[in-house]
Amino acid sequence: MPAVQHIGVIGEETCSTRTAALARRVGAAVGHAGAVLLSGGRGGVMEAASRGAAEAGGVVVGILPGFRRQDANRWVTVPIVTGMDQARNVILVRSCDALIAVGGMYGTLSEIALALKLGIPVVGLGTWRLRQPQGRRVPIIRASTPEAAVRRAIRAARSARQAGGWLS
Amino acid sequence: MPAVQHIGVIGEETCSTRTAALARRVGAAVGHAGAVLLSGGRGGVMEAASRGAAEAGGVVVGILPGFRRQDANRWVTVPIVTGMDQARNVILVRSCDALIAVGGMYGTLSEIALALKLGIPVVGLGTWRLRQPQGRRVPIIRASTPEAAVRRAIRAARSARQAGGWLS
Amino acid sequence: MPAVQHIGVIGEETCSTRTAALARRVGAAVGHAGAVLLSGGRGGVMEAASRGAAEAGGVVVGILPGFRRQDANRWVTVPIVTGMDQARNVILVRSCDALIAVGGMYGTLSEIALALKLGIPVVGLGTWRLRQPQGRRVPIIRASTPEAAVRRAIRAARSARQAGGWLS
Amino acid sequence: MPAVQHIGVIGEETCSTRTAALARRVGAAVGHAGAVLLSGGRGGVMEAASRGAAEAGGVVVGILPGFRRQDANRWVTVPIVTGMDQARNVILVRSCDALIAVGGMYGTLSEIALALKLGIPVVGLGTWRLRQPQGRRVPIIRASTPEAAVRRAIRAARSARQAGGWLS
Repeated sequence: MPAVQHIGVIGEETCSTRTAALARRVGAAVGHAGAVLLSGGRGGVMEAASRGAAEAGGVVVGILPGFRRQDANRWVTVPIVTGMDQARNVILVRSCDALIAVGGMYGTLSEIALALKLGIPVVGLGTWRLRQPQGRRVPIIRASTPEAAVRRAIRAARSARQAGGWLS
Repeated sequence: MPAVQHIGVIGEETCSTRTAALARRVGAAVGHAGAVLLSGGRGGVMEAASRGAAEAGGVVVGILPGFRRQDANRWVTVPIVTGMDQARNVILVRSCDALIAVGGMYGTLSEIALALKLGIPVVGLGTWRLRQPQGRRVPIIRASTPEAAVRRAIRAARSARQAGGWLS
Repeated sequence: MPAVQHIGVIGEETCSTRTAALARRVGAAVGHAGAVLLSGGRGGVMEAASRGAAEAGGVVVGILPGFRRQDANRWVTVPIVTGMDQARNVILVRSCDALIAVGGMYGTLSEIALALKLGIPVVGLGTWRLRQPQGRRVPIIRASTPEAAVRRAIRAARSARQAGGWLS
Repeated sequence: MPAVQHIGVIGEETCSTRTAALARRVGAAVGHAGAVLLSGGRGGVMEAASRGAAEAGGVVVGILPGFRRQDANRWVTVPIVTGMDQARNVILVRSCDALIAVGGMYGTLSEIALALKLGIPVVGLGTWRLRQPQGRRVPIIRASTPEAAVRRAIRAARSARQAGGWLS
């Protein structure tokens, strides 16, 4: 039996309606794929993705920065209260098989970079384009639709797991 | 509609079969009450409680100290990978409406103390008995059976929420 | 050449003048011994100990729970800004060769318990008296004066280091 | 009296001798300026910067990812043992008035991004060049020599403090 996948969605706490619509479709596709959706549990991209996944009947984890469970958006079904502010991003990244970045600014960039460091696949939807200081490309997987982003995230997660030898 | 309760179970990673049996009954009662069970996600008391809750059809969260999701016991349905060793205990405590300590040594004591500091109710089943340096009693709620422990934890959590003004 | 010792002082953020006087003498003895003093960097016992050490010319580290260096008491010479609230206690404990608890309530108890779990010696000055659930005694080293507390902390730290095989 | 500045140096744990030489000069300039140098406390850029600062008589803080103080490079005078792996980067960034990135890969990028998010000035010496997803430039201050990098970091830190209203 294939293990349940854990897909993280990262992006800004305040975002345009267009970006929110994309994030909601990402969440819906994660939920329909039977994967668990994880996010920072707050507003904007996080809320839209949580909503999409919850409406699709999925489990929705929110790794909250603050001290109160009530800070979670209303679609989170499993709130985790870290009280660690930005350090919660590390927990979010580590808990995922793959991340999907929808837009995003510096916080999202720090999560993308952390995932790349830890060898966790990152799929980008309208997010940062990066080049290493030495000019080499950075292995962010590009997608042009939310549904393609989720497909690629799930495939990349499976490959990473197999490469890591812990497919269950 | 009453909010879902989040009940943490804390105790040692290695424990006697007697203690494990108690922890499993605690987990079962949490699951049957429709509450989410949280633990440190590893062996011993954590595994027995997770098993009880999972067998009762409940959601089982494991807040893991290490770097790999596979370190979770097999009953955990939502593994959170912190990579923060003991600091994960803070996240576990904060994420709960009430804690139930089953036996336990120093790690459990540090979690009990943290919960008391944060105003989160603690129910004890064969755990530490404490007296303040000034001789005052410490408000650990005693229970003599797993089922009573869970009933008291849920009641205390509800009261704490109402006192905190955030019953939803 | 013996390595510099790192001694932590833990206790309440608000305390009686009598307790503050004890903590200041602890800090002074740490400073005069040439050891680095570490604390949570805030008021009460932390501030008094920091003051004692700073007045004795010592290095004074404050592991702060919040987001601003200015939250440190004025005697801290090396402020560390964690932004992690209670989880900073784990960092404080881990960074010390030995801890001295001066009075203290639940926060202090959680730090004592964590140190005991990690095998870091704890010296108590008017602090918690504990007995394991099974009735065995808990190895908190008692002292009746601040100066004796520091002597015992330094001796215990040296033994723990040698036992751990990493005396430098 | 102006407050002591806290300058962080970030970069890879393994680096070329050329990069190490630059980092050592950065450390030396930080030490000569009377500022405290902070780093992740390990090898490569961190060690070279620590060495430069220590040789200049400065205070050298190492915010360590692991569990043992002995993991610090030999130039660290104040080791902080976090046991939190990558989450220690958040503590490092928060504890600095300004950061200087010397070269660097994904870990460095995550620290740069976090600093930008938190409004902490970043000076770059042969490090990442970034453009926001919307094409706007990212305010990394460029420097072409280690000495210029330190001058700019100190100046930027002073401005950021004044803007924040907490110059002491």
